[in-house]
Amino acid sequence: MKICVLPGDGIGPEIMAQALRVLDALRTDGLPFETETAHLGGCAVDATGVPLPDETLKLAKAADAVLLGAVGGPQWDALPREKRPERGLLGIRKELNLFANLRPAILYPELANASSLKPELVAGLDIMIVRELTGDIYFGQPRGIEVRNGERVGYNTMIYSESEIRRIGKVAYEIARKRGGKLCSVDKMNVLECTQLWRDVMIEMAPDYPDVTLSHMLVDNAAMQLVKNPKQFDVVVTGNIFGDILSDEAAMLTGSIGMLPSASLDENNKGMYEPCHGSAPDIAGKGLANPLATILSVAMMLRYTFSQEAAAQRIETAVKSVLAQGYRTGDIFEPGTRKVGTIEMGDAVIAAL
Amino acid sequence: MKICVLPGDGIGPEIMAQALRVLDALRTDGLPFETETAHLGGCAVDATGVPLPDETLKLAKAADAVLLGAVGGPQWDALPREKRPERGLLGIRKELNLFANLRPAILYPELANASSLKPELVAGLDIMIVRELTGDIYFGQPRGIEVRNGERVGYNTMIYSESEIRRIGKVAYEIARKRGGKLCSVDKMNVLECTQLWRDVMIEMAPDYPDVTLSHMLVDNAAMQLVKNPKQFDVVVTGNIFGDILSDEAAMLTGSIGMLPSASLDENNKGMYEPCHGSAPDIAGKGLANPLATILSVAMMLRYTFSQEAAAQRIETAVKSVLAQGYRTGDIFEPGTRKVGTIEMGDAVIAAL
Ligand SMILES: [Mg+2]
Ligand SMILES: [Mg+2]
Repeated sequence: MKICVLPGDGIGPEIMAQALRVLDALRTDGLPFETETAHLGGCAVDATGVPLPDETLKLAKAADAVLLGAVGGPQWDALPREKRPERGLLGIRKELNLFANLRPAILYPELANASSLKPELVAGLDIMIVRELTGDIYFGQPRGIEVRNGERVGYNTMIYSESEIRRIGKVAYEIARKRGGKLCSVDKMNVLECTQLWRDVMIEMAPDYPDVTLSHMLVDNAAMQLVKNPKQFDVVVTGNIFGDILSDEAAMLTGSIGMLPSASLDENNKGMYEPCHGSAPDIAGKGLANPLATILSVAMMLRYTFSQEAAAQRIETAVKSVLAQGYRTGDIFEPGTRKVGTIEMGDAVIAAL
Repeated sequence: MKICVLPGDGIGPEIMAQALRVLDALRTDGLPFETETAHLGGCAVDATGVPLPDETLKLAKAADAVLLGAVGGPQWDALPREKRPERGLLGIRKELNLFANLRPAILYPELANASSLKPELVAGLDIMIVRELTGDIYFGQPRGIEVRNGERVGYNTMIYSESEIRRIGKVAYEIARKRGGKLCSVDKMNVLECTQLWRDVMIEMAPDYPDVTLSHMLVDNAAMQLVKNPKQFDVVVTGNIFGDILSDEAAMLTGSIGMLPSASLDENNKGMYEPCHGSAPDIAGKGLANPLATILSVAMMLRYTFSQEAAAQRIETAVKSVLAQGYRTGDIFEPGTRKVGTIEMGDAVIAAL
């Protein structure tokens, strides 16, 4: 079990330190992890001149999983586009062929007040959005801006092949099978042929998963239903652009992005795991950052890459217990709870493991 | 002031009857409206065999504005695609070249409980979403599903020309100028060249509107910000597909779609006005439907096509007053308010005019 650890920039190193302590605790209990650490993002630019050094890519390719903190910060914003920290992130996703993005939107009942929705509508929310990450209009050709008939015209191509849809469909069906058995595929088939094919393929796959109930929703309706009644969803599968929009909308329903992990998988369940939040340069180095999303990313890694469901649940249960005990970092603090820093939060999770 | 009235199907005729009573009251006060009524949708199929009869199109083209109830119903669902009621709607929009879709998301403080968001975050919400309606990926060529390298591939083309962006930009800037002076343009310029051009053109237009503050937001962030803090928005302008998703999300924030009007305008402010809700076949003919969205559509017509701002505000003030008095149709009823039917609600608005 080889893990490539990329702490990154800003609060990345601090939150990663706590995630690694959790991993250490599990290693002591018999899980034979090996870790190697490398640079990605702004720290890689500072050290080597590029955001994704060859050395880092080599380590990532050799590992079974990649655990990432966060990248970016204002000191690198003035760099040319190809040297920006975010390029390192896009580059590693592409090089590792991570086509399946898993974006859970979970709201622990203890944090229900953080949501802008009424608590009864979101407390206990547990949605998994499966977003295709390497195709669709974000990568389609032809694309560009050019002059036609004397004026500028901008264009992009939305495109999916049957095999691309089938491989993300397989990931989504298998996750639905392990969860509540409900899969909602989101498209715009009444207008877009590309998504008509998406729906057709999802329907063709259904007989292989008799234990999963497939439903369909148009993307504009899905954006509405997430606001109206988010708990109606179990697993949602959709293309890259719709998934970009809906996974962010769903994350914001929880009101606590500092709690949300994510995974990006390839065809063999090799994956990169990272918190949904950014590098928060404003609080970096102060010991204030919330390490729970990174710790929960470790749980996702155990579940999806290493098939260690028991260990994954052990971490998730420890996080729930820590919240129930009232521990809160500043981003999720409410009066009546106990405000702690990054390290104390890590201590509390390890104690609860 | 010629108005083509299309009551349509389901609850359409009932809610239209109340809207026409409001129009009559204004006519008595000196506004010289002429109305002619025609068939669109399922009723047109029943009467003539097609959802958009030539006679209807001729009347609509000759009129200054079109006022529509709602179309569709289960009895026409089995018809071939080109005979469905919705085709009549798409056809008339296209024939009249209605490229600017105005979708207000307004939440009257009296109805704040209807929202799934916490009341303090949405009470008094007043957003205007300006959606481009005749271009973008919904109409772009090439498009289709075909076999390439032995497998099916589905594709669509997102495309905007400078002149298309400029004409919807003009509508949005002018509305922002008449409202709070804030315009937020939504795109995905960091990934899509088509929307990079969108942003460029919006920026190029800004010097002509020194009284409007232009800002930009990526579409995934906009989907989040609508949930997190919807009152930050005044006027939002975006393309067809992003506008489809965001205008529905924003409408659902209010929790009371039975209250929301909409407009679709051409280059000369000729427009079609209609409620956002559908034809509600389940309650059709029972006198239960909420006529307020259609009555508010009349107010939009007065404002945007006929430049009768005072008359528009008179209707809107009457609707507010009726809500303050506690009148509610079933869709917006809460304990402690007064439940009324379609006609009584019309009576109350006319009394309050
Ligand atoms: Mg996003
Ligand atoms: Mg829509």
